[in-house]
Amino acid sequence: MSGKGGLEGVVVADISSSLVDGENGRLIYAGYEIEDLAANSTFEEVCHLLWYGRLPKADELELLRSRIAHDAKLPDEIIAMMKALPKQAEPMAVLRTVVSALAHYDPDAEILGNKAVAMHKAIRLTGQITTACAAWDRIRKGHEPIAPRQDLALSANFVYMLSGEEPKKETVDAVDVYMILLAEHGMNASTFTARVVTGTGSDFHSAIVGAIGALKGPAHGGANAEAMRQFVEIGEVENVEPWFTKNIKNGERRIMGIGHRIYKALDPRAQILRDKAKAMAEASGNMKWFLIADNLAQLARADQYFIERKLYPNVDYYSAIVLYTIGLDIDMFTPLFAMSRIAGWSANVIEQMGGRLIRPDANYVGPMGLKWVPINER
Amino acid sequence: MSGKGGLEGVVVADISSSLVDGENGRLIYAGYEIEDLAANSTFEEVCHLLWYGRLPKADELELLRSRIAHDAKLPDEIIAMMKALPKQAEPMAVLRTVVSALAHYDPDAEILGNKAVAMHKAIRLTGQITTACAAWDRIRKGHEPIAPRQDLALSANFVYMLSGEEPKKETVDAVDVYMILLAEHGMNASTFTARVVTGTGSDFHSAIVGAIGALKGPAHGGANAEAMRQFVEIGEVENVEPWFTKNIKNGERRIMGIGHRIYKALDPRAQILRDKAKAMAEASGNMKWFLIADNLAQLARADQYFIERKLYPNVDYYSAIVLYTIGLDIDMFTPLFAMSRIAGWSANVIEQMGGRLIRPDANYVGPMGLKWVPINER
Repeated sequence: MSGKGGLEGVVVADISSSLVDGENGRLIYAGYEIEDLAANSTFEEVCHLLWYGRLPKADELELLRSRIAHDAKLPDEIIAMMKALPKQAEPMAVLRTVVSALAHYDPDAEILGNKAVAMHKAIRLTGQITTACAAWDRIRKGHEPIAPRQDLALSANFVYMLSGEEPKKETVDAVDVYMILLAEHGMNASTFTARVVTGTGSDFHSAIVGAIGALKGPAHGGANAEAMRQFVEIGEVENVEPWFTKNIKNGERRIMGIGHRIYKALDPRAQILRDKAKAMAEASGNMKWFLIADNLAQLARADQYFIERKLYPNVDYYSAIVLYTIGLDIDMFTPLFAMSRIAGWSANVIEQMGGRLIRPDANYVGPMGLKWVPINER
Repeated sequence: MSGKGGLEGVVVADISSSLVDGENGRLIYAGYEIEDLAANSTFEEVCHLLWYGRLPKADELELLRSRIAHDAKLPDEIIAMMKALPKQAEPMAVLRTVVSALAHYDPDAEILGNKAVAMHKAIRLTGQITTACAAWDRIRKGHEPIAPRQDLALSANFVYMLSGEEPKKETVDAVDVYMILLAEHGMNASTFTARVVTGTGSDFHSAIVGAIGALKGPAHGGANAEAMRQFVEIGEVENVEPWFTKNIKNGERRIMGIGHRIYKALDPRAQILRDKAKAMAEASGNMKWFLIADNLAQLARADQYFIERKLYPNVDYYSAIVLYTIGLDIDMFTPLFAMSRIAGWSANVIEQMGGRLIRPDANYVGPMGLKWVPINER
């Protein structure tokens, strides 16, 4: 095959929402450094930035927050459908089914090619996906799902809907920083999937459903869960060094959450999440998971193999610790990724609308010139 | 932006299942000309060819046919879910939801990266999608869905499950030729979507769900329905010429189903389907729809605009007439496309498994260097 098949460096579209500067470890959302946004903004502010190209004024932010909260309620039919699913169903697969099914109850679902209508669908799905994530975590544990509150922002609503209790500020802040950091990231595989689907003129839900399917993969959004499973396998801080020597030094396995296709410097999101994970660990008095991750990262940082290949912890590495400290089940990590990334997917789908059908070429390697042979002569 | 954004001519993967030779109007499945396959083979033979790289012997064909028929039955939970959906739900959206939900009942759904297991899922979904198409057509009309028979091939089963009556040979033959012709077509947008999803290591159902979403678009699989709606708008054979003069000559609209991104000669599938449509029209004594389509195509063929741009009827153009003559509702045309294309999608997903993450680049056109401003100072 000519080319490496991964489309590295092939420019496929204009993008306004984000710039990933992998060489310098920078991530920019519509002009703003990710560090500034993580330190100062809320998830809804970032949604406004990604969708409308600028930060909102106070009344615009409250309008967007209240619209998302209002639209976040799931139709009763969707709750009934979720209750009928097998309890052991994989949460990302459930989210894929639920988002697909939400289209059947969205009066605008089949209005194609209209960017203003697509924006309504983006707002609606952003709230609905958060509610669906919390609802599935409750339903599969045999609890009744909890409807979103109208007075809360999305991250607070998620924490509230998980337990029904008044959400704790520290937990909400951690979720909100996570949501801000994961909201958008250039032409990644799930965003590209959403754009390819949109390129056929298909509907908004189809694009997001496709993106969820791509994010689900262990080489993409599934990596945060894979990272945490590896930390759990290590189990204790004193196991880090022997585990590293046995599994990594001899090259048998890779460290999940270390290394990134684009970043050849430290992923700026990883640094922010490391600080967050450390603060949460200290506040909770349970340093174990943070130390397992951080000590393992130090071993990798001093290892020739990792140094030569510029392999640094990526966003999945420390986000796993943050989400685990909050108390989320590991298989809910990737749905949380989707809950955040819907912001960026939506911006990209709307930008792609009206664009050209994306249809690459392939290198035919099959046989040629075969003659038909009747079945009894084969 | 550098490049045209449509990835024309960019080679993204090796492909063994098909070669589209657009310049010469040829389509080859794994070495065989599409004309030979349409004239001689059955849909299951083509599945075997696409999935295993060679035509089956008689016992292999019977084994594959019976396995597809056996696995084609939908779980009771899926039938219950479909009955609970709004009757007016768009059929491709329903198919997207159903295929996503089928994963929850597939014991192999979350076994990733294993090509043999993926092949089982391909066989299962090929049957299940056919059953789902027929079932949805009945459910939305208030009829009880009909389970697949174990003694029939897939095209016959589809015709049987639509009505519950013994399927007529002419109808089955027309569906089977359609299924053969639409089964596979190079690196088209839905196949590419399936490959991008697979590139993240995600599961088989996610890839197919993504592909269904892409096929749904009016610039891809949705085009057969668009073509038929245009024929219905024309309404009578004597309206063809004034309609062409008013709408096409003045350049206001395009003829749906004429022109193709790849074919710069007659799409070989269009020729076969034209002959089929003509024979069916003659047999039924109702030539109207065939003549509307064929007369319109003749006007286009003599028109300078179409000649210069090498715009010929594509597969959607005459397939619309074939499917309409069978008695299918127009919004079921694209689901039938999916019912056939699952064969090619499956071959492509399995070929892509283990390949590189597909992540192209984008051209950032947003602002740079913006400074954070507190919300009350904006």
